[in-house]
Amino acid sequence: MKTPLLLDGVEVSNRIKADLAKRVTALNEKGITPSLATILVGEDPSSATYVRMKGNACHKLGMESKKIEMPTETTTEELLATIQQLNEDHTVHGILLQHPVPEQIDERAAFDAIAIEKDVDGVTTLGFAQNAFNFAQYPSCTPAAIMAILDHYDLPIEGKHAVVVGRSPILGKPVSMMLLNRNATVTICHSRTSELEAHVKQADIVVAAVGRPEFIKGEWIKPGAVVLDAGYNKGNVGDCDYDGCAANASAITPVPGGVGPVTISMLLKHTVDAAERLNP
Amino acid sequence: MKTPLLLDGVEVSNRIKADLAKRVTALNEKGITPSLATILVGEDPSSATYVRMKGNACHKLGMESKKIEMPTETTTEELLATIQQLNEDHTVHGILLQHPVPEQIDERAAFDAIAIEKDVDGVTTLGFAQNAFNFAQYPSCTPAAIMAILDHYDLPIEGKHAVVVGRSPILGKPVSMMLLNRNATVTICHSRTSELEAHVKQADIVVAAVGRPEFIKGEWIKPGAVVLDAGYNKGNVGDCDYDGCAANASAITPVPGGVGPVTISMLLKHTVDAAERLNP
Repeated sequence: MKTPLLLDGVEVSNRIKADLAKRVTALNEKGITPSLATILVGEDPSSATYVRMKGNACHKLGMESKKIEMPTETTTEELLATIQQLNEDHTVHGILLQHPVPEQIDERAAFDAIAIEKDVDGVTTLGFAQNAFNFAQYPSCTPAAIMAILDHYDLPIEGKHAVVVGRSPILGKPVSMMLLNRNATVTICHSRTSELEAHVKQADIVVAAVGRPEFIKGEWIKPGAVVLDAGYNKGNVGDCDYDGCAANASAITPVPGGVGPVTISMLLKHTVDAAERLNP
Repeated sequence: MKTPLLLDGVEVSNRIKADLAKRVTALNEKGITPSLATILVGEDPSSATYVRMKGNACHKLGMESKKIEMPTETTTEELLATIQQLNEDHTVHGILLQHPVPEQIDERAAFDAIAIEKDVDGVTTLGFAQNAFNFAQYPSCTPAAIMAILDHYDLPIEGKHAVVVGRSPILGKPVSMMLLNRNATVTICHSRTSELEAHVKQADIVVAAVGRPEFIKGEWIKPGAVVLDAGYNKGNVGDCDYDGCAANASAITPVPGGVGPVTISMLLKHTVDAAERLNP
């Protein structure tokens, strides 16, 4: 049993941030501080943690993070008004609305209220399609992170069979389109898939995006496959049974320390991109 | 060898048009004639034929077709200006830009200039994403036709493995998303797919959207599979070797008389939908 290549998200993330640090310095010299506005609605503790992590990551790079916290009982209209203000605020370059929002809010309407040029998290409907058609400025961050990891480790995509387990608007669907645009053959599986195991067993590249702890079993992995685990569940475990999958994979992302850190770096990168584009 | 069920596009189309005829009459009684503007740029004879067919189909239903013909040397700016006029013209309910346009034109920009509420052909970037997220008013017409045929013949989609061969923005990609949204497991293949035959052989539902005559061979079809041929090539042949595929399929669309007529009916349906929505 060979040890698989560890796809080290912290290393990929550090590489991205080293490049960003230079670009932030150059912007600072022009009097510009790249600024990410984060909107947290309600009191979900995990969401609060995520938002704090993103804010801290901004500060470490010399970027600004503008934290907006709104009460649980916020209405869609109130949230849309806040987003509209941020769209018009020239000191804000990127807007992140932390998912999920309380259930009385029309989340899709809120996402789609974000101006496309500030949609650094890649959550708008239009942004999804631009990504699917291969001309998005800001693809969704987790899919972008997965592609960045594959590229950092020079893992081939063209002609490979990628099996994506999950079909959400910000993960399963966009990563499928990105892999397809890089000439992979892509199979999209989900909760209603019959014979999931048989599909995963054929994959050269497995993307786990289910949101269920250790759902993908080691014996489902074809020997030599590349496994990217975008899950992050309670108890610090991913969507894959790590030890089991690692026994068959040629390369695998750990959880934590895999896709997660790169996702945050992609958010920072998009915000710096936006600051540069909005201040040419 | 059993004879497969013939998925008769003319029958499906006639059913749709019978319903539309009533709706057109109701609109006429309110003084409204559903109107489709068609834009043909250049002198491609097949494109001219398609536009004429669409216009005739409108007239037969008591709808209006407004034909705009522009010279081969039209610039992107000129085309965008024409589209903008049609967007603002309250007597026009739907706009169709015949594909392909001459190569000096930015086709994507032209498609995306069409107002989303008049994008009855389902060609805008935003419309694609709304369809992928399952809330489009006007999905692309050929994918919509494929779904209408499956539904007309009550062919199950949920849990089935659909293999789509082709990944274009108005056919392969949107039909993949529509099948996925109906709970099929979807594999998207294309010109760079390795082992195409092995993928197609696993399909419960095959969608051929390649644009190459008789490219899909009979022996690639799993016995009992449903075959939908969206191809239409010179010599009146589809993307599938019809006789070969029919020998294995449980159901199959002919070419001509399969997906094609339903595609035109979907365009008419969307135009009537738009006329109703724009005149509530």
